[in-house]
Amino acid sequence: MGSALAAALLDHGHPTTVWNRSPRKAKPLADHGAHVAATPEDAVAGSGLGGLVLVCVLDYDALHAVLDPVAEAGGLAGKSLVNLTSGSPEQAVEMAAWAASHCAGYLDGGIMTTPPGVGHPEMMFLYSGSQTVYETHRPALAVLGDPLYLGAEPGLASLYDAALLGLMWATFTGWLHGTALVTSDGTTATDFTRVALRWLTGAVSGFVTAYAPQVDAGRYPGDDATIDVQIAAIDHLIHAAHARGIDNSLPHLLKATMERAAAAGHGSDSYASVIESLRAAGRR
Amino acid sequence: MGSALAAALLDHGHPTTVWNRSPRKAKPLADHGAHVAATPEDAVAGSGLGGLVLVCVLDYDALHAVLDPVAEAGGLAGKSLVNLTSGSPEQAVEMAAWAASHCAGYLDGGIMTTPPGVGHPEMMFLYSGSQTVYETHRPALAVLGDPLYLGAEPGLASLYDAALLGLMWATFTGWLHGTALVTSDGTTATDFTRVALRWLTGAVSGFVTAYAPQVDAGRYPGDDATIDVQIAAIDHLIHAAHARGIDNSLPHLLKATMERAAAAGHGSDSYASVIESLRAAGRR
Repeated sequence: MGSALAAALLDHGHPTTVWNRSPRKAKPLADHGAHVAATPEDAVAGSGLGGLVLVCVLDYDALHAVLDPVAEAGGLAGKSLVNLTSGSPEQAVEMAAWAASHCAGYLDGGIMTTPPGVGHPEMMFLYSGSQTVYETHRPALAVLGDPLYLGAEPGLASLYDAALLGLMWATFTGWLHGTALVTSDGTTATDFTRVALRWLTGAVSGFVTAYAPQVDAGRYPGDDATIDVQIAAIDHLIHAAHARGIDNSLPHLLKATMERAAAAGHGSDSYASVIESLRAAGRR
Repeated sequence: MGSALAAALLDHGHPTTVWNRSPRKAKPLADHGAHVAATPEDAVAGSGLGGLVLVCVLDYDALHAVLDPVAEAGGLAGKSLVNLTSGSPEQAVEMAAWAASHCAGYLDGGIMTTPPGVGHPEMMFLYSGSQTVYETHRPALAVLGDPLYLGAEPGLASLYDAALLGLMWATFTGWLHGTALVTSDGTTATDFTRVALRWLTGAVSGFVTAYAPQVDAGRYPGDDATIDVQIAAIDHLIHAAHARGIDNSLPHLLKATMERAAAAGHGSDSYASVIESLRAAGRR
């Protein structure tokens, strides 16, 4: 991922200094004009006063292993630290305080694509923390993907990151369950997926758009798609999948989730009311 | 739903005969020009030779209660029966045979919207069964929504219907889990949903598009988004949700699903390889 980030910057003519634990990874970047630093200290120094320091490593242990010596030598003072390392919101908050204690500005980021997607203008990069760092370095950040500033709370980007990945895995698994169902009767995954994506980006997105303000209002009018109606419908899915020998863990969980909402009095409400049961977990 | 279907036909000037168990439900349609039949027999007879007979009732028991007397009196002979009642693929297959035994053409359908969506040209109506019935009555079916013919196998429409609803519920639940997460830190559902829908219709749809041919080929190159990488990432979600008192049943199931795929040797493969574990359920 570090290589992809540096390559995108170099592609857009941004003078870039790189450092990696494995010097051989820096070689192709050097061939594209990157200055290769021998140490993290040199790399950070290479960014110049108020300069942008992008860090993307495996986890926060690796992050501190790389940056602690730099910070202790005073090398972060006045820098704009943009941390694209994956972690928890709590880790981002701690890192912001750590950066402040070393006189660096701090912006936390979440990369919502894989390395091949870096540099594509439609790919989202989520940021939270110092708005000054964000505004100052927006032109450089914009060559990595489409930068989205979520707010001053440093944990927001990784909170969104986690929430969006959860949505992705749920969607993937629902899609694969449906694909297993239709392919067992001879349809190709490609044929089904064409219809599934139309459904997802059309009607399903339409429901989600309508449900969001219901969540904000805490009121969930069910209209013609109540939880009770959907509990009745999910048995068709469960039976069809069972008859075809397909694992039904996900539909069973979805049904139990709906039944929990109905038991809490939301049977005539929309699916959005399920959020009340998800939140209630901490109060049980 | 029956009222919405009849209203769409009437709106487009299609002569329409209606029947409902509760005559008062037919009243508003009569005001819009529908002919109200006193019995199912009269309603079916009102469609004329080779005419379109649309049926949409609660379930297959209700369907047979309405249609059996008509069929036994020979009233279905030569008709085109289009059945929009929700049911299993197996029920659709039986119904097609039943219709054939009463000399009626049979098309099974799945309505992929709620009653207010009926009549909107972007809403999908799935059909399977007699292509002759579909082609003959396509103009009338097209006023209900966008008709999609899936094939001659009568069960396909309800199989797709179940698969697409499963995808919808999974997506809804993943979205609500993420929404619970970010709203617990003060973001509005509406703000998060704007980003979530962009993610869903952009990057997530892109992955799904790339994964479908992997499923058809039975080979799942992981490239930069392997199952192992995603197992590592889901712990951030689980920890963040746990810290906020949010129910983690769905992320735990997703993690277990990925771990099952990894244990089966797919750790370096893409998420699409999860389909192998879903299918293997029937072989365990």
